[in-house]
Amino acid sequence: MPNVNVIRRMQFNSAHRLHNPEKSDEWNAATFGKCNSPNWHGHNYVLEIGVVGEPSAETGYVIDLGELKKIANDRVIDKCDHKNLNLEVDFMRGVIPSTENFAIAIWNELADALPSGTLSLIRLYETENNWVEYRGE
Amino acid sequence: MPNVNVIRRMQFNSAHRLHNPEKSDEWNAATFGKCNSPNWHGHNYVLEIGVVGEPSAETGYVIDLGELKKIANDRVIDKCDHKNLNLEVDFMRGVIPSTENFAIAIWNELADALPSGTLSLIRLYETENNWVEYRGE
Amino acid sequence: MPNVNVIRRMQFNSAHRLHNPEKSDEWNAATFGKCNSPNWHGHNYVLEIGVVGEPSAETGYVIDLGELKKIANDRVIDKCDHKNLNLEVDFMRGVIPSTENFAIAIWNELADALPSGTLSLIRLYETENNWVEYRGE
Amino acid sequence: MPNVNVIRRMQFNSAHRLHNPEKSDEWNAATFGKCNSPNWHGHNYVLEIGVVGEPSAETGYVIDLGELKKIANDRVIDKCDHKNLNLEVDFMRGVIPSTENFAIAIWNELADALPSGTLSLIRLYETENNWVEYRGE
Amino acid sequence: MPNVNVIRRMQFNSAHRLHNPEKSDEWNAATFGKCNSPNWHGHNYVLEIGVVGEPSAETGYVIDLGELKKIANDRVIDKCDHKNLNLEVDFMRGVIPSTENFAIAIWNELADALPSGTLSLIRLYETENNWVEYRGE
Amino acid sequence: MPNVNVIRRMQFNSAHRLHNPEKSDEWNAATFGKCNSPNWHGHNYVLEIGVVGEPSAETGYVIDLGELKKIANDRVIDKCDHKNLNLEVDFMRGVIPSTENFAIAIWNELADALPSGTLSLIRLYETENNWVEYRGE
Repeated sequence: MPNVNVIRRMQFNSAHRLHNPEKSDEWNAATFGKCNSPNWHGHNYVLEIGVVGEPSAETGYVIDLGELKKIANDRVIDKCDHKNLNLEVDFMRGVIPSTENFAIAIWNELADALPSGTLSLIRLYETENNWVEYRGE
Repeated sequence: MPNVNVIRRMQFNSAHRLHNPEKSDEWNAATFGKCNSPNWHGHNYVLEIGVVGEPSAETGYVIDLGELKKIANDRVIDKCDHKNLNLEVDFMRGVIPSTENFAIAIWNELADALPSGTLSLIRLYETENNWVEYRGE
Repeated sequence: MPNVNVIRRMQFNSAHRLHNPEKSDEWNAATFGKCNSPNWHGHNYVLEIGVVGEPSAETGYVIDLGELKKIANDRVIDKCDHKNLNLEVDFMRGVIPSTENFAIAIWNELADALPSGTLSLIRLYETENNWVEYRGE
Repeated sequence: MPNVNVIRRMQFNSAHRLHNPEKSDEWNAATFGKCNSPNWHGHNYVLEIGVVGEPSAETGYVIDLGELKKIANDRVIDKCDHKNLNLEVDFMRGVIPSTENFAIAIWNELADALPSGTLSLIRLYETENNWVEYRGE
Repeated sequence: MPNVNVIRRMQFNSAHRLHNPEKSDEWNAATFGKCNSPNWHGHNYVLEIGVVGEPSAETGYVIDLGELKKIANDRVIDKCDHKNLNLEVDFMRGVIPSTENFAIAIWNELADALPSGTLSLIRLYETENNWVEYRGE
Repeated sequence: MPNVNVIRRMQFNSAHRLHNPEKSDEWNAATFGKCNSPNWHGHNYVLEIGVVGEPSAETGYVIDLGELKKIANDRVIDKCDHKNLNLEVDFMRGVIPSTENFAIAIWNELADALPSGTLSLIRLYETENNWVEYRGE
């Protein structure tokens, strides 16, 4: 039976700062450079969510994209959009908000929440030149 | 020996409607929402075709992209472009034209038609925010 | 006092067909080619709406983009999205739905509806390679 | 003699918040919604700078784009990139950082600094769906 | 009567080199830097052609885009695509192939060739970050 | 432990020509068509480099993107940008510069040079419609 990946692209805007609180300010400045800038900076994050499965014979869908959008809004977008990732997002508490760590955390928010199909991909763009992909492995 | 994926991007514009004729109008309206709108809607579909193989020592090509384009035009694009997917496309007869089902059907049109290399990917964009990927598995 | 143009980008998906009902089928086929295809085709239309004015001293806004989005949804997008431009859109009745005519009609829907600023631009993409711009002149 | 516009696209990432300090918190929350969120949010700003003039007979250039890039970096990008627009940018002091006001302020930073040609356009994208254009008028 | 701009986007790939043969090699290297590299470099040029006019009552078109494409292919694209702008393009003979000069030369090739409407814009992208616009003024 | 792919996008502009010097001019012209054009053509190449690994507990990084950029500049971009791939690039000597072969050669330049993580992907765009992906297999 054929397995198809369905991808949904969404966007949100957040402030953040790369900072390891267990290290000195000097270490943080030397390691993260301008990404450690103390008064925050921000991004138009682009999030692509992949769900794999066999299309339903009744609908032709792997997953209803309206349902996927609602789940992603509830569990990820509404918590992050126009928010500060270091200060305000429950699922990022205690996590350095690198794109890598952020993508893993988003995976963990969504993996058990899908009504059909299986989460296959979190692709997260920080800028048009830098992004990460996580497949739960 | 190295195996490289070559991807060719193409476009076409079609009308369609999501509708399962074995179900009631109420079921269809509730399930597909505005995608079930009776007088059709349409998309600028973007199709990305992947072919994997070892580059030829003589040409450096996995596949001649001019040949791939011709095959894709003959078997897919010319049948779908400026056409109604529900009414006019032979290889979509009896298939609900979800992006998932459409991608599988395109795969089946192309998989046996390549002069070199092996079909590895059908990526089909319905909009810039929704797309599917099928790898024949 | 400085005048700034604010542009809002929106999208919708419609079916249409180029056809002049006052002409013969032969004339239509010869003139419009595949755009005259009888069972419709469709597009992911991208609409960019420009509003020019002096930013408010209190808000820094020429126009509240949330209000602009609501007006555009009420007057244009909700009428066209997942609809057939030839059959279902009140403000396109009797109009050949070329991108040119469609842009002029959208201008006329919006020009008198703005709470602040002045409509300055309707840019309407039919595909990524073809679009029109109308400035009310 | 022909006049050509040359456009250079650049990017930077900043945090900001829409807030009018002369108004109450209630007014700000009601007026700016989530853009008033207290712990900041941010954007990948895209800045397009237009310079108009007659191409030099010796070089074919209206302006050397390397020089333009250096001036834009010195006067705008380096001051804003990975910074907080409300707290850290000298030329935005006392200005509500709406895209409109930000574009006017960038114009004022650059208009007198060009070694050749005349500043003709500041186009500033806050997101892929919202942007402004200012032409110094 | 309404005047609409119609824009058609096209692409081609050329080699070129910025070099003023009336100047010394030292001057050229100092002025053009790596763009003066002797063994050529190249670009995926993107050309946007604007035509302004009143839409025809019979067709809704300012200009038939198929005709525009044919004229642009004959007069510009076929002469430049997979060619060397310094050595092989008749309408660039004796012209330093800066984007500015190239856009003016393309305008001159097209301005008198249109069957309807008036040429209003040549927008020519050398890269995604650098482009020029010429409006015949 | 989670493994994340980090992707960095970079660009450069080169001239090239598809030509197999062991074959006749007739064979080359028939096989490569306009890509064999003798006076070169060129492209805005887009290079996406993927690195896979476990994010560092101290930084949240799989690899410092500043280091990756420096390595890619030293080993690939600076050698190719504004250069002729057939004549001037050491790691392309004796290689037909098809996108396939070019991607494999770039992989070989980078695979042993990373300070952390493992090279997972070379995606190389020749145009917006044609690209290749190589994963070292």
